[in-house]
Amino acid sequence: MLASGQIYDISSLVDDISPETIADGSLASLDDTAIRACPEVAGNLRTGPCLKRTGNFVAIGLNYVQHALETNAPIPEEPILFNKAPSCLSGPNDPVMLPRESSKADWEVELALVIGKRTSYVSEADALDAVFGYTICNDVSERAFQLERGGQWMKGKCCETFGPLGPWLVTGDDVGDPQKLRLWLDLNGERLQDSNTDDMIFSVAKIVSYVSQFLVLEPGDVITTGTPQGVGLGMSPERFLKPGDEMRLGIDKLGEQTQSVVAFQDRG
Amino acid sequence: MLASGQIYDISSLVDDISPETIADGSLASLDDTAIRACPEVAGNLRTGPCLKRTGNFVAIGLNYVQHALETNAPIPEEPILFNKAPSCLSGPNDPVMLPRESSKADWEVELALVIGKRTSYVSEADALDAVFGYTICNDVSERAFQLERGGQWMKGKCCETFGPLGPWLVTGDDVGDPQKLRLWLDLNGERLQDSNTDDMIFSVAKIVSYVSQFLVLEPGDVITTGTPQGVGLGMSPERFLKPGDEMRLGIDKLGEQTQSVVAFQDRG
Repeated sequence: MLASGQIYDISSLVDDISPETIADGSLASLDDTAIRACPEVAGNLRTGPCLKRTGNFVAIGLNYVQHALETNAPIPEEPILFNKAPSCLSGPNDPVMLPRESSKADWEVELALVIGKRTSYVSEADALDAVFGYTICNDVSERAFQLERGGQWMKGKCCETFGPLGPWLVTGDDVGDPQKLRLWLDLNGERLQDSNTDDMIFSVAKIVSYVSQFLVLEPGDVITTGTPQGVGLGMSPERFLKPGDEMRLGIDKLGEQTQSVVAFQDRG
Repeated sequence: MLASGQIYDISSLVDDISPETIADGSLASLDDTAIRACPEVAGNLRTGPCLKRTGNFVAIGLNYVQHALETNAPIPEEPILFNKAPSCLSGPNDPVMLPRESSKADWEVELALVIGKRTSYVSEADALDAVFGYTICNDVSERAFQLERGGQWMKGKCCETFGPLGPWLVTGDDVGDPQKLRLWLDLNGERLQDSNTDDMIFSVAKIVSYVSQFLVLEPGDVITTGTPQGVGLGMSPERFLKPGDEMRLGIDKLGEQTQSVVAFQDRG
């Protein structure tokens, strides 16, 4: 889709938007002229995730000052890292399914970035050169699984449909300064998250540099950079998702997502 | 490589040993007769990891009774899950490189399994049907990164070369009961780990079933199932890896790995 809203079938130009086509440069080589020469697509299409597959799906915890305060957590001295499962990736408007025995499912609007090249021990000054582009992630979280089932957070972060990503993958030059983006989330029309990436404790550049000290980042890896205040866990009383709820969330320059919450259904 | 030790170039039969060829059944359809018709390969070859790429690389913490005791940790009531990075995958005999500023790198011989099909909410009784095969993983760990850098364990588990996997990927029917396998590790010729998978707190079947409650497992995902007692962190005084050390490790029916430890070198 171009900024004009027109949708083109670019399958003759690039195999898919994937770690492979990021790595081989074919995605970066697309230009508007070539895209406009492709067949236009009409109709009300499902929007898939903005990346076919994520290699590593890394997430940052407690990265906004006001969010750390609302959850009564100390301000981290270093970024907190955890993983989401590649299999939780879903489209930006696909339903979010509550897992079996879920009681505390929560929302988290986040700025996510997609890595463009192999990155190891990158300096903070050079870190943004490693970013291919930005998108929106709803880092859906089951707080009981995350915090009450022993040890590590990933138990509440990886469930099927817990990784809506998209709608667009916007390159860094079109985003500009990633620390000046408003981000927000409405639940059933009520604005619950409304902040700006300038409240991040650790900047995008710092995060990419930091993560690259602990692991090699590869093209198509995703890092989602933490959520601002306004999650259900931080409310008094706490408030969690139930079937029929609708989440709508957005970030400046990156578009919007809308997800309906559905009960568990066995998909085999 | 066949059990006889002969090595064949099977690239005409199957693209690679990968999540894709596990998913599409082409790997499972190979038989000895077809393999023997391929060109034989001679020479002293590097052995790559037994899987081209892992989708999700899940690990289980503190899963042996005697290992929990040696680290003064309580016996977990539920499996502890964390992630290794797909990018830490390396060959079974490739050098293990200490990361920059490493002071507490440690060894962990582990039984790893490779998932054969999409698996969600599988029962313990059916769980082993989801396993394509077994192999050896050295879950190399930097304890200072894992335990002293804030929060989650993955900081010490994902460094480049920290995931030697292989040499063989042995199918379940050739392994038999996964809870009756001796596993061991020598450091510089000294036996430091020597146990049996019958000391696992949570069996392989339980682990696969449990993980599948929290995320969808996909073909080519790896779960490494925890290490027995005898790691450096559990010794008094503690003992960690240094350049020049040699690790040799093995598991019944799955072969052996040998890794030399090397100092950090910037690979860009």
